[in-house]
Amino acid sequence: MATVNSNYDKLPAIYLFSEIARKTAAFAKKNAGVEILKLGIGNTTEPIGTTIISGFKKGVEKLSKTSTYSGYGDEQGDLRLRSALSNWYKKSKIRIDPLEIFISDGAKSDSANIQSIFGPTTKVAICDPVYPVYKDSNVIAGRKVIYMPCNENNGFFPDVPKEKVDLIYICSPNNPTGAVATQPQLKKFVNFATAKKAVIIFDAAYFAYIKDPKFPKSIYEIPGAKKCAVEINSFSKWAGFTGVRLGWTVVPMDLICQNAKRGKLNSLWNRRQTTMFNGASNIVQEGGLAALTQQGQKESQKVVNYYMENAKLIKKTLERTGLKVYGGQNAPYIWLKVPKGMTSWNFFDKLLEEAHIVGTPGSGFGPSGEGFFRLSAFGHRQNIQKALRSIEKNLKI
Amino acid sequence: MATVNSNYDKLPAIYLFSEIARKTAAFAKKNAGVEILKLGIGNTTEPIGTTIISGFKKGVEKLSKTSTYSGYGDEQGDLRLRSALSNWYKKSKIRIDPLEIFISDGAKSDSANIQSIFGPTTKVAICDPVYPVYKDSNVIAGRKVIYMPCNENNGFFPDVPKEKVDLIYICSPNNPTGAVATQPQLKKFVNFATAKKAVIIFDAAYFAYIKDPKFPKSIYEIPGAKKCAVEINSFSKWAGFTGVRLGWTVVPMDLICQNAKRGKLNSLWNRRQTTMFNGASNIVQEGGLAALTQQGQKESQKVVNYYMENAKLIKKTLERTGLKVYGGQNAPYIWLKVPKGMTSWNFFDKLLEEAHIVGTPGSGFGPSGEGFFRLSAFGHRQNIQKALRSIEKNLKI
Repeated sequence: MATVNSNYDKLPAIYLFSEIARKTAAFAKKNAGVEILKLGIGNTTEPIGTTIISGFKKGVEKLSKTSTYSGYGDEQGDLRLRSALSNWYKKSKIRIDPLEIFISDGAKSDSANIQSIFGPTTKVAICDPVYPVYKDSNVIAGRKVIYMPCNENNGFFPDVPKEKVDLIYICSPNNPTGAVATQPQLKKFVNFATAKKAVIIFDAAYFAYIKDPKFPKSIYEIPGAKKCAVEINSFSKWAGFTGVRLGWTVVPMDLICQNAKRGKLNSLWNRRQTTMFNGASNIVQEGGLAALTQQGQKESQKVVNYYMENAKLIKKTLERTGLKVYGGQNAPYIWLKVPKGMTSWNFFDKLLEEAHIVGTPGSGFGPSGEGFFRLSAFGHRQNIQKALRSIEKNLKI
Repeated sequence: MATVNSNYDKLPAIYLFSEIARKTAAFAKKNAGVEILKLGIGNTTEPIGTTIISGFKKGVEKLSKTSTYSGYGDEQGDLRLRSALSNWYKKSKIRIDPLEIFISDGAKSDSANIQSIFGPTTKVAICDPVYPVYKDSNVIAGRKVIYMPCNENNGFFPDVPKEKVDLIYICSPNNPTGAVATQPQLKKFVNFATAKKAVIIFDAAYFAYIKDPKFPKSIYEIPGAKKCAVEINSFSKWAGFTGVRLGWTVVPMDLICQNAKRGKLNSLWNRRQTTMFNGASNIVQEGGLAALTQQGQKESQKVVNYYMENAKLIKKTLERTGLKVYGGQNAPYIWLKVPKGMTSWNFFDKLLEEAHIVGTPGSGFGPSGEGFFRLSAFGHRQNIQKALRSIEKNLKI
């Protein structure tokens, strides 16, 4: 008799965004004709620049001709793209060999799958609150997860764990709090991981939103990180690839676990990817190459700036209403403290009922998210402005 | 201290195709100027038809405009594509609801990941020889795998297992043997799975190569299969999407395991995909939609016919040289018996040294593949013909 993986029973019964969708649909049904404004999901909304579009088209054209058609590429990704990323790191004075870079179909897959190369008894630490995939993927694999609370007291970035941990997930800029780790904060984690022979999984997907040079955009800006950290990154949030699907993961050659014959994490991840994945789309990888050109980066940065202008507007308006607001300065997320006495979901209902705005309850990202609420700066300007006017006019704080 | 998943140590140290690449590179280095002809990997080579190309372009264009740009889609895939596939099944009188269809980035990912929704003690049966992903993904997850030998005696399709098994992988048309299961053969497996409450994972990626109507193209042609079988499929081999990446998996609503709260496999796979995957590329899905139009299918079938003409030529030539040949009639793979006294790898070396042709040793697909050798019908006609001339002229049988 086939049995199912009962670890799925340990996951919360509802997935955050499905529940939001359900509640929103119910509201829409009861309030036909009312315009619902979405500041919820971290989904890009602005078109992709012409340089990248031309890259995609080139990828498509190649498939139409015998001389340029390509089938399976390397599971690790097109070497041209791996090299372009290696050069891109070089501009920040970071040396990453192309063979240390694995192209993926996006940061979510890699964030979810990376745990599978570690042992079953691995003790995992994650920030709380954080994007659910780090925790959920480990719960499904049967592991226990330790929370590192992020709250107003520690500026939403945790201290190193007091418990023994083997695998530490850090997302900076953080989703959902918008908090960004400083150089000394990351250094403390790198030193901790080095001393304890732990491994850091650093999710840098929002790096492009960092404006303040005091915040590292890559974990490899920290000396010693190549011996203890994997970096997961994506084209989604800086080049508008959320629906296009392209990301990469850096697994340095120096990163070694000592319990097994195949302790070199680079070889292990290589084996995982060659065995269980067949590479990112060739069309999409051509677009990625175009995104990494100077012009591609310039066009993409324009869109990032646009979203950050949204973030500024949201932050200003919310502060004017008297709400306490975090994030939104080096990250596309605004993390607001809900009025006293309310839960995150209470505030979700209130914001939807009174201002017709859909946001994301902080408690959906972990227990320390309770009492907070995430708004996203992704959106068309006029929709953001409409939402903000509705907040000023209709929300009763 | 971080430890690695030691199950990786149980995998064979070398991955079949990497070893082939290594040996080929070594030969090329020693024999500069010699043209090496590849009949090894099952990789499509012919350009994609104009209808599908237009589909991709439409997908790209949409990303360039504010009004049509899209970010994250549903993790399960674009509902238009799920519906188009549902209609496509309907033409074969198979009723699959769009919500039973999950779009993926290709059959390899799903073939590798599907095991993760089953319990750790699941007993797994696979055909031997077969494409390595079914076995490797289960070994990495710590499971034991039972082989169902496929050999000349049983026409390369196995009888139902005598042991107790919970999960059965069937690939038909089979890679590498080119053998195709008949209706009665599949019926026996469906009856077995039903009686034992086992689940069948049916990989139909090569369905388009079936010409003889006596062979089912889908497991759902067998009555009762919706209660015991998952079907994994792909756009790779019939529409030339090997590098483009698009596939789908059918998990029927009626498929239920009884050990857990979440015994409905459709919900479980839905949870797996929404948690750990972010959907297939929107550009690529537009191409998939175009492929499913009448014109798209017609153009694709032309390419399939071209490969099958290659298969016929290969089969004929090999038979003329006196080799015993299987497959190649309803599948793009030719499965030849190597001369007496040789191993599959011996024949690999011989074929490379004497005829400068790269093929795939049968033993790389499982112990029952020893003594056999896979040639692939994917390739440009003139290369295939050149290879065949070289075989006739240079191979000493």
